[in-house]
Amino acid sequence: MAKLIKDGTVSLDTCPTVSAFAAAVGKKEGEGPLSGCFDYIAEDVTLGESSWEKSESKLQQIALGTALSKGGFSEKNIDVIFAGDLLNQCVSSSYGARDTHIPFMGLFGACSTMAEGLCLASVFVDSGAAVNAAAVTSSHFCSAERQFRLPVNYGGQRTPTAQWTATAAGCAVISPHGKPPYVRAVTIGKIKDMGITDANNMGAAMAAAAYDTISRHLSNTNQSIDDFDLILTGDLGKVGRDILIELFKKDNVDMTEKHNDCGIMLYDIEKQDVHAGGSGCGCSASVLCGHILKEIQEGRLNKVLFAATGALMSPTIVQQGESIPGISHAVELSGK
Amino acid sequence: MAKLIKDGTVSLDTCPTVSAFAAAVGKKEGEGPLSGCFDYIAEDVTLGESSWEKSESKLQQIALGTALSKGGFSEKNIDVIFAGDLLNQCVSSSYGARDTHIPFMGLFGACSTMAEGLCLASVFVDSGAAVNAAAVTSSHFCSAERQFRLPVNYGGQRTPTAQWTATAAGCAVISPHGKPPYVRAVTIGKIKDMGITDANNMGAAMAAAAYDTISRHLSNTNQSIDDFDLILTGDLGKVGRDILIELFKKDNVDMTEKHNDCGIMLYDIEKQDVHAGGSGCGCSASVLCGHILKEIQEGRLNKVLFAATGALMSPTIVQQGESIPGISHAVELSGK
Repeated sequence: MAKLIKDGTVSLDTCPTVSAFAAAVGKKEGEGPLSGCFDYIAEDVTLGESSWEKSESKLQQIALGTALSKGGFSEKNIDVIFAGDLLNQCVSSSYGARDTHIPFMGLFGACSTMAEGLCLASVFVDSGAAVNAAAVTSSHFCSAERQFRLPVNYGGQRTPTAQWTATAAGCAVISPHGKPPYVRAVTIGKIKDMGITDANNMGAAMAAAAYDTISRHLSNTNQSIDDFDLILTGDLGKVGRDILIELFKKDNVDMTEKHNDCGIMLYDIEKQDVHAGGSGCGCSASVLCGHILKEIQEGRLNKVLFAATGALMSPTIVQQGESIPGISHAVELSGK
Repeated sequence: MAKLIKDGTVSLDTCPTVSAFAAAVGKKEGEGPLSGCFDYIAEDVTLGESSWEKSESKLQQIALGTALSKGGFSEKNIDVIFAGDLLNQCVSSSYGARDTHIPFMGLFGACSTMAEGLCLASVFVDSGAAVNAAAVTSSHFCSAERQFRLPVNYGGQRTPTAQWTATAAGCAVISPHGKPPYVRAVTIGKIKDMGITDANNMGAAMAAAAYDTISRHLSNTNQSIDDFDLILTGDLGKVGRDILIELFKKDNVDMTEKHNDCGIMLYDIEKQDVHAGGSGCGCSASVLCGHILKEIQEGRLNKVLFAATGALMSPTIVQQGESIPGISHAVELSGK
């Protein structure tokens, strides 16, 4: 059962398994380097809906529905959904799950939501509070642009440090027994603020949180990066990755080879013109649920530390001159 | 340890205790019928801050700090904070906790957040994933009015079914051993949509969710309302309370005497001109943490089912013509 090791790290002694997972993405994401990995690629960004918010909800419904169906689950088998997203009042999650009859817990972890949901689902399953628990999240380029930046039609110039909000959703179901991937331990994030006030430089705002969580996880579990095949952050992009590597260098740890970032993996950064890389709750969720979990399942990766990162700001508070706090939650996944 | 009974209800066999709690409120709330119950009453709605969002963060900091100090806890004793609020991207919670070094999990449950946080904190403590876990939430009249309705200075006319967003925050710390109140069981809410499209009639939008959760809790735990001293909803207000009572009448259950609502208790509805009653995450949080927990602790109440309710809409999605889904999470508190 769940056991607090220390300082936010919880070991899951029953080793809950990721029993089913699915990723649904937009057209642009479906044209990227992970093209062959996704369960669903939308033909256009509307998904046939009348608003961007509803398109995003639909993407979340597709990810949830596909994961359940791939795992042979019906709605009745799922004891709780942990879901959240970037939209005001997290409406793509609540409207996405509205037609289900599954107990629902709403989260807000910005782009760290997939890891937050997996932490909670794993603790619930490990402790017996749920048999099967799902973590779901999404983002949508157009709903996010309008809400956080400018209407898409305005065609505003993007800065070099800006990231591209992914149109994507992912869902993973955690269950008590079964085949790998297993969840071995989780580390809950702390809020870290590097004083960044530029809302177009999220990677920099989140790097310190990723560094703190990854360091704590390794130290609390008595492991080093050598024990892992991959340290996978979510959405730091190129700018944030460079900062993360610098931060670890100060501890004499060279993260260069072991680290990758979902925001860098989802797109061909140069060809697809996404500047510093991808972002959005759906970015790390779709890379994890489309690609990484399969790599673990099929033995090409064994041990992965998935540390999704989120920037916990709102446009209102940034306009008030506040700096942007980041958070990162970590999930240790393993093939054995 | 935590055990799923069925359909969203989890029993907590170690009976975690609410080891510390505090409520901080605004001036108007401090002039209401529960005036003598609060740990802190602000002299004005700004709390000395330069924006409503920062005032709300401050209120949350005061509630957390006071609860820790009343319980003799330092930050290091708290293994995780579960916090959320109504603001876009839940900024009053993340900026409220930014200066702490406590592992943080952000929630979005609208006005049901206090119950959602208590469910999670109780499962974490019961399962051993945390020794001490805090649930914190807040709302602020002025930040909510501007965001959901109109700028306060506009002086818009309020409809009779409208509720008054409380300027208030509450914090409760869950621990494994100690004196009552105990958390015996929790029921996770399902999303219920009655087709209400009027954002000034939240009580009606949330009543079905409260009915569903309370019914499930009673049925899953083999109890009836006779086993409880109080069934306490959060923020249904007068309109929602009447609907809830009607819904239970169809099951031949008369809820009239056993039920009360935090939105009705926080204000003198007539004299303080709050129309259908109070609302906001801080409403049920402050009534629970200022008044109810003390009543249980001091033996005036024994068994209470706290079922906070939330409306999971955003202004954007309501403007798109969507109806408003509600949710309610329940926490069974007991003095023995």
